[in-house]
Amino acid sequence: MASPAPTSDAFILAAKQCEIGILEELTETCDVVTAISELVHELQRERALSNIHLVSHGERLVPQRRQQIERCRHQEDRLRHLLSRRYLNHPPGHTGMPLLNTIALVLQGMDGLPALRNKISDLGMSPEDATFAFRRLIAGLLSVVFHAADVASEPIITRTLVALFNFMQGKEYAGQERAWGSIGFATGQFNREWGERIEQLQELQNRSFEDFRRFIDEALETQWRAHEADACNTDLNRLRSLIERLCQGDSIDSEISEVWYEVATRRIDGLRAIETALTAALQQTCREQLTRARHDLRSQQSRLSDLVHHQTPLTLLFDTRALPFTDHFQRRDIGSPEQARSVYELMLGQAEQIKQMEEALEDARRALRERKQIEKAKGLLMSELGLSEEQAYARMREKAMRNNQKLAELAVTLIDAADAARENGRAPKN
Amino acid sequence: MASPAPTSDAFILAAKQCEIGILEELTETCDVVTAISELVHELQRERALSNIHLVSHGERLVPQRRQQIERCRHQEDRLRHLLSRRYLNHPPGHTGMPLLNTIALVLQGMDGLPALRNKISDLGMSPEDATFAFRRLIAGLLSVVFHAADVASEPIITRTLVALFNFMQGKEYAGQERAWGSIGFATGQFNREWGERIEQLQELQNRSFEDFRRFIDEALETQWRAHEADACNTDLNRLRSLIERLCQGDSIDSEISEVWYEVATRRIDGLRAIETALTAALQQTCREQLTRARHDLRSQQSRLSDLVHHQTPLTLLFDTRALPFTDHFQRRDIGSPEQARSVYELMLGQAEQIKQMEEALEDARRALRERKQIEKAKGLLMSELGLSEEQAYARMREKAMRNNQKLAELAVTLIDAADAARENGRAPKN
Repeated sequence: MASPAPTSDAFILAAKQCEIGILEELTETCDVVTAISELVHELQRERALSNIHLVSHGERLVPQRRQQIERCRHQEDRLRHLLSRRYLNHPPGHTGMPLLNTIALVLQGMDGLPALRNKISDLGMSPEDATFAFRRLIAGLLSVVFHAADVASEPIITRTLVALFNFMQGKEYAGQERAWGSIGFATGQFNREWGERIEQLQELQNRSFEDFRRFIDEALETQWRAHEADACNTDLNRLRSLIERLCQGDSIDSEISEVWYEVATRRIDGLRAIETALTAALQQTCREQLTRARHDLRSQQSRLSDLVHHQTPLTLLFDTRALPFTDHFQRRDIGSPEQARSVYELMLGQAEQIKQMEEALEDARRALRERKQIEKAKGLLMSELGLSEEQAYARMREKAMRNNQKLAELAVTLIDAADAARENGRAPKN
Repeated sequence: MASPAPTSDAFILAAKQCEIGILEELTETCDVVTAISELVHELQRERALSNIHLVSHGERLVPQRRQQIERCRHQEDRLRHLLSRRYLNHPPGHTGMPLLNTIALVLQGMDGLPALRNKISDLGMSPEDATFAFRRLIAGLLSVVFHAADVASEPIITRTLVALFNFMQGKEYAGQERAWGSIGFATGQFNREWGERIEQLQELQNRSFEDFRRFIDEALETQWRAHEADACNTDLNRLRSLIERLCQGDSIDSEISEVWYEVATRRIDGLRAIETALTAALQQTCREQLTRARHDLRSQQSRLSDLVHHQTPLTLLFDTRALPFTDHFQRRDIGSPEQARSVYELMLGQAEQIKQMEEALEDARRALRERKQIEKAKGLLMSELGLSEEQAYARMREKAMRNNQKLAELAVTLIDAADAARENGRAPKN
């Protein structure tokens, strides 16, 4: 007990410094996330070129693939160094464990890329297996973005991260659609299962882009609408209808695969432009919020030293209008901290600002929670009923439609039922 | 890009170190929370003695009150130093802002205690106002415990913190019941409003203790049942029935106030014994978890250096059974990290452990979220309809019963309605 007793001033300023620390870390996180979006884009292209390589028995687009691998390697290196700078130099505190462990898995996956590339060069694996290998690595990278959004605690940045995660997810489904479509057209035929997979990917894209649109501002919404109105989407829909017809059993000249690839790529490049705008907005927001928070700290410091001269005895002991709630103090007549006429009012004003921030976060947090619940319910169906990921998703979608429920609501029902069944000592039945 | 590229090993170990860091911080947090529970207990006694001082016009229990103030001062000093050590030396990262700002408000409230005590000594305020002043300060201290639980991320510790918060809340309602009952008996009569307030406090106690019991182990549950079976509860219920009858308008000899005080205090001291067991369990859990995590880190380090010698090419690229979900990787056949035969399996095992930890946290987190929502809805009713805290709570309780809803469900309905109304540009109607 040698140190002097702390004053409330020290804690008021510590709360502001805490915000600045959060924003500085978020700024580096956003650099990481931007690098991930770039690497994923390059890997998606490499995946497409790898499929063409495999389907054409190593005859087509060989130099393009070689160049693309170089581009990927460059982005891989960049990401590795950013990850190390962001997470090993300043280890994240609370809730950082899933993020760090996912990064470990992804880095080891990236270590395996040279072996994967050799196998593809040697035509030592099927296009399906190659597609799945890239898909898993990209899913791992997306998972890092998800966790980054999950631990972020500034409302605007969190919303943008949630938008970005959903957008990247949608774009990845578009990339998978391109991959499966390429293989199908190149072999000249589709079957019903293949058609269902592609249809499901279209639906997953729509859902992801809808979720993305819930968290963006008007500028991005305008850009999204312009993209949707673009001719490539009309062309794509025409080819999608063709796939539907081919699933009835007809076959088609494999030449059309080039048209499909070109149209799907044009669309994905359009999506990439939106993604770039989104990561630019993210970095812009980080810079602005950091400037604002630093300004707030300075103005609060000077406000505190002003107020010390006309200290009033007002504390929560004597403030009959203060409502001390479990999560926040509340008082109706408090303005911003700048208008405070006492240290006490300044603290209540800051409490009100923090409360508004937390409330603004809730919407984005709920979206992340719902996503986790959907994934968890899907995993339950897969392990309990031995279904594939696609089958589990299809079953959930059907059931949600039949019950007139949102997918997230159905997920909670399934999870609760499984928990109840486990508590009763039996395996859940769905 | 001068630093060497990070390996996945570095991130696997960083995830474990992250857990140790969390647990070290939590151990200090638990010291703070224990000190808060001690200070609150002393303040509750001071509040009771202050009421007797005021109602008896400064004639009764004067030396006891003086001694009690000394005990409070001692606990105040201890808490101030623990707060400084825990939060100013190692500022909390994410989500620390509401905690720090609430601490600032509470410290300033504690600065005001000498002025409050002088007023009471000089009989310069009513017992009601004195009761409310202590109530607000204690609510602030409880709010610190709430935030500490809110930022904790280890399941067992979080559950115990949630149990402790609910227990402290219940004990504080019991303390308020003692205070209002003391004043009522000392003046020799009760009115209907007074009776309703006391009835509400009994119900709030029951709800808080039910919430507490959701998060405790069997040893504490046994202790709780023994407390409930204690004679002091029978005596208390007899006096509660008497209050109910007195609310009809009868008056009674004020001598009975001493009986009430004695019985209510015996019960609260019984509650305090459970609270002490709870904080002891909390500190025990922290020590155990820290020992376990440090052991885990060492065994993982040696496991990693073993595995490096028979490295397998297994990564998520080639593991066809890996299911990369947005929140976690999942694979059914992975055991504990100790059984891992490759670095890859070690990471999946760790992912599975982290997932189980997060899921175990969800129950406690949901309880905190529900509490926040109830408080928020209460605040909405208060500001929109100009109700007191008690009236708002009573209205919510009635409405929930009428709709056959849980209080937390009704709270969400009210909040959503208010949000929708705000979006439509009108004030919400309830």
